[in-house]
Amino acid sequence: MIAEKLQALRNYMASKNLDAFIIPSTDPHQSEYVADYWKLREYFSGFTGSAGTLVVTQKIAGLWTDSRYFLQFEDECANSEVTLCKQSIPHAPEHVAWLCDLLEEKSVIGVDYRQFSKAQIDYILSHTKEKHIALQNEPHFAKEIWTDRPSLPNFTVDIHPLEFSGETTASKLTKVQEEIEKQNADYYLFSSLDEVAWLFNIRSRDVDFTPLVTAYAFVGKTNTILFCNTNRFSQNAITIFEKLNITIKDYDTIATLLPEITQNKVVLTDASSLNYACFNGINGQLIYKNSLVKELKAIKNEVEILGTKNCMLKDGVALTKFFIWLEKELEKRAISEYEIGRKLDSFRQQQEYYTGESFAAIVGYQGNGAIIHYTAPEEGSAMVKNEGILLVDSGAQYKDGTTDITRTIWLGGTPSEKIKTAYTGVLKGYIELEQLQFPLGTTGAQIDAFARVHLWKNGLNYPHGTGHGIGCFGMVHEPAQGFATGATTARGTTPHLANQLTTIEPGCYVTNEFGIRTENIVVSKEVNQTEFGTFLGFEPLTLCYIDTELLAIETLTIDEKRWLNEYHQTVLDKLSPLLNEDEKQWLAQKCKAL
Amino acid sequence: MIAEKLQALRNYMASKNLDAFIIPSTDPHQSEYVADYWKLREYFSGFTGSAGTLVVTQKIAGLWTDSRYFLQFEDECANSEVTLCKQSIPHAPEHVAWLCDLLEEKSVIGVDYRQFSKAQIDYILSHTKEKHIALQNEPHFAKEIWTDRPSLPNFTVDIHPLEFSGETTASKLTKVQEEIEKQNADYYLFSSLDEVAWLFNIRSRDVDFTPLVTAYAFVGKTNTILFCNTNRFSQNAITIFEKLNITIKDYDTIATLLPEITQNKVVLTDASSLNYACFNGINGQLIYKNSLVKELKAIKNEVEILGTKNCMLKDGVALTKFFIWLEKELEKRAISEYEIGRKLDSFRQQQEYYTGESFAAIVGYQGNGAIIHYTAPEEGSAMVKNEGILLVDSGAQYKDGTTDITRTIWLGGTPSEKIKTAYTGVLKGYIELEQLQFPLGTTGAQIDAFARVHLWKNGLNYPHGTGHGIGCFGMVHEPAQGFATGATTARGTTPHLANQLTTIEPGCYVTNEFGIRTENIVVSKEVNQTEFGTFLGFEPLTLCYIDTELLAIETLTIDEKRWLNEYHQTVLDKLSPLLNEDEKQWLAQKCKAL
Repeated sequence: MIAEKLQALRNYMASKNLDAFIIPSTDPHQSEYVADYWKLREYFSGFTGSAGTLVVTQKIAGLWTDSRYFLQFEDECANSEVTLCKQSIPHAPEHVAWLCDLLEEKSVIGVDYRQFSKAQIDYILSHTKEKHIALQNEPHFAKEIWTDRPSLPNFTVDIHPLEFSGETTASKLTKVQEEIEKQNADYYLFSSLDEVAWLFNIRSRDVDFTPLVTAYAFVGKTNTILFCNTNRFSQNAITIFEKLNITIKDYDTIATLLPEITQNKVVLTDASSLNYACFNGINGQLIYKNSLVKELKAIKNEVEILGTKNCMLKDGVALTKFFIWLEKELEKRAISEYEIGRKLDSFRQQQEYYTGESFAAIVGYQGNGAIIHYTAPEEGSAMVKNEGILLVDSGAQYKDGTTDITRTIWLGGTPSEKIKTAYTGVLKGYIELEQLQFPLGTTGAQIDAFARVHLWKNGLNYPHGTGHGIGCFGMVHEPAQGFATGATTARGTTPHLANQLTTIEPGCYVTNEFGIRTENIVVSKEVNQTEFGTFLGFEPLTLCYIDTELLAIETLTIDEKRWLNEYHQTVLDKLSPLLNEDEKQWLAQKCKAL
Repeated sequence: MIAEKLQALRNYMASKNLDAFIIPSTDPHQSEYVADYWKLREYFSGFTGSAGTLVVTQKIAGLWTDSRYFLQFEDECANSEVTLCKQSIPHAPEHVAWLCDLLEEKSVIGVDYRQFSKAQIDYILSHTKEKHIALQNEPHFAKEIWTDRPSLPNFTVDIHPLEFSGETTASKLTKVQEEIEKQNADYYLFSSLDEVAWLFNIRSRDVDFTPLVTAYAFVGKTNTILFCNTNRFSQNAITIFEKLNITIKDYDTIATLLPEITQNKVVLTDASSLNYACFNGINGQLIYKNSLVKELKAIKNEVEILGTKNCMLKDGVALTKFFIWLEKELEKRAISEYEIGRKLDSFRQQQEYYTGESFAAIVGYQGNGAIIHYTAPEEGSAMVKNEGILLVDSGAQYKDGTTDITRTIWLGGTPSEKIKTAYTGVLKGYIELEQLQFPLGTTGAQIDAFARVHLWKNGLNYPHGTGHGIGCFGMVHEPAQGFATGATTARGTTPHLANQLTTIEPGCYVTNEFGIRTENIVVSKEVNQTEFGTFLGFEPLTLCYIDTELLAIETLTIDEKRWLNEYHQTVLDKLSPLLNEDEKQWLAQKCKAL
């Protein structure tokens, strides 16, 4: 199957004199989750992980991805000719130097310019220069091969009301227009879907897990164009937008309109998200800036934070009911990982404003928990029994916010010392980072290690960052702040500011044995102001008990015990009014003070 | 005085049609401490700090330096027209963008190419491009102005014996030659003085505080040229070098020989240390690499580590005798900061192989301790009494190693809660980082914050990195590893490896009140090997008691108390055999278990 697809691609390459083809995992908006139409890399490689790049030559088909996906790759691609190329840094374009090394002088690489940002193409060109390797734009390469390709999404666009967004489109646009004035520019072009959704307070369901709308925004000093198919808007929405001098034009018309309206104009944009096809279409002068909207939307307003807190109540209730169901049901029968994931979704469906999962829930039993981005298959997933360890990482989209939570629980039997050491180290690390007070402007890379130190002490570690920003009825992985070891990722280099939502999620994974992760969402806030500056701290928002059966309680410090007892008391206090008597008692037992 | 010098420079600039002049603090080898001949920035600005750049136009004379030097600048330059330009990041060339902004199109900036590395000139050129600003090489600009300029150093060059270096020149050269082969190159050019000193096992006293030799090394596959004045070597040394196919040629001849011998050759070099005049003189092809010698010398061999441990015994004895003297003498009289610094030096002079201080000792009483790079003036320094707080940061050069230690002591009276909180936070931070176990390859920026966390908790912080590499009878600040907040400095981005010597030196400074710093040298070593990789830890080498009078003992954890008691026991055990009975008893009192 994959062999046939690759052969067809290679025939196409031969017909076009292409020596290589690069197929990334993204769409024209540099999205993490993409519409089925854009799942080219999955189509040609069989690999379904969210991060990875396929590089094809006549001889080699290499899938570049990082350690989070190594086990998943083996599962999905072991029987095809696709080779795993191990990236040392997630999302780093390590394949570029490798490919340029491999290719001969004056080779030609095929790419679809829409799938690459301006910055990415610049990076590739800096490597191809020496050997005079050329890039060739091939937007139609899959046309004759992928004959049953899905169409682009065309769902109705919803207006995201002020009671959830907390700020009007008019107010947001004014901030952008002030920046245009300040930079002596004429337009600001936004192409990230989450930025467009935030700026116009619009939502839809174009891509899995994220309520976004496929669109570009072209903001001028007085008038604005939203490139999005007009048939997706109600007359009411169009009228509202007209009052704000926002014109809606069909998505595809950007290709012809962009050269026209940018003639002799100065356009602000973010080179890291602008796709290269758009870049080629701009006739005027470009000024590259980190996207203003990305910066603005990372700071949550009061309404957004309140909405997120409401979601935590709902998520907490759903998770409590789910864990009760799981405990009781496992006394009677074994349940597949897949069924467990669906059941969790069904408990969330009972909650107000729920629209779906914020990512594919990870339900990993025993060794499956060690596959960091595991998805249990509908058929043949592992049968969970009332023994061993289970990792559940899941999240929800509610109209008033987005959630992301991981809990690891013990289902029965006696846990090994190794598991207890790892589980306790993970919790200690979570507490250490969550309790930290640090100067405003501290970056993620500076404090990521606080979540690791108790694992390191025991010779343990985890191969991923410690956390990421999260949106409000938006992207579950939102730029730019977070916690990461690397000085090369935005999550490592971005300063933390007040009123940001971020996950803290240390873990520990032993292949074929177990996976452990504990994750809460926290909000940053000012906690101190001294002659040495402003200091920030975190407040946990997620409300769900943390399993104490896996804890080496005797190794907890007094402060750690106090933290756990206080957290559990908060969980109990906030969720109890929303639970029935049996549920309350069950939760009280789980939240019992140590 | 400064006004006259600046006027003379401006006249020169006018005569040469220069719109600006940049005078950095370094020499043709990018040295931290430079021979008097190269103290151009000090000559024209009056500022003696070790980091800072003077930028002169007809209207402005701006001295760019970072927060460590702000108070020193005020002391030294308050009465001249030189303006303080505050850098936010130490050593960052923030003046370049500022100057290019200030200057008009097609302006001309004067520089001495020898004082700038290839990388620095490239950086400047990337900023001057837009406004077509030109650079003009002015190696003789000071000739008519600085008429009593000192001459270049010409001291005898000593061979550093194997009993101290632990590795022969032949062995070191072979490693470089292997790299030349590997890179398909012809030569490796080294221009950092510490790299040349390490590679050839040579030492002299060309610059203050560092036993280096002004020289360039040009290593070929079979023959090597050392550019250094031949009259500085004994016949014996010349003979030894001849056997290794090392030819010594006069320092200045590099200017004429370099173009000749590099014709059609491939030369490896480090763009961050190669000066631009040398770069211009190379006729062949250049390959830029991080200096191999920098990497090799950062890993200490057994002999070097043993030598350093010996130095710690000597330094510990000298410091103990010094602190005893200070305590007794203060009972009788007030003593100037300057005299205290000289007295400390005199105790070190009694130790074997001592050749001098490794940097200008910082003796800062009360508020003076807050001036991070303070030097007590010979005349009129503060009088220290038996009350308040004293910071002593000093270091030594012994032929078997280099030391650097800071202690802060309480001289009498009742310390404020503020001082005790700060002092205790600094010690807790030191312990936290020194006790850390972390994966091989962890960078300084990832773990720097462990030394800050207890200060942050109390709204405190310090405006410098937490530590630096240190040489062996070499540079007290040795690249590249260390601990720093920034992802832009080598100390932040360089991975820690085993067998490196690094300082850990958190502090806390309140202007006009007090300065606190506690600093030990530690050696990194493997402490664990698991399925998650190799883990490193630190072992403290410095042997000197830590004042417990300033400690808020009740806030120490059991582990912190245990660390302090064990450290004090080690200090006492190791130093006692080298002290007389009175000294032993005094030290035992200071090292008494808590």
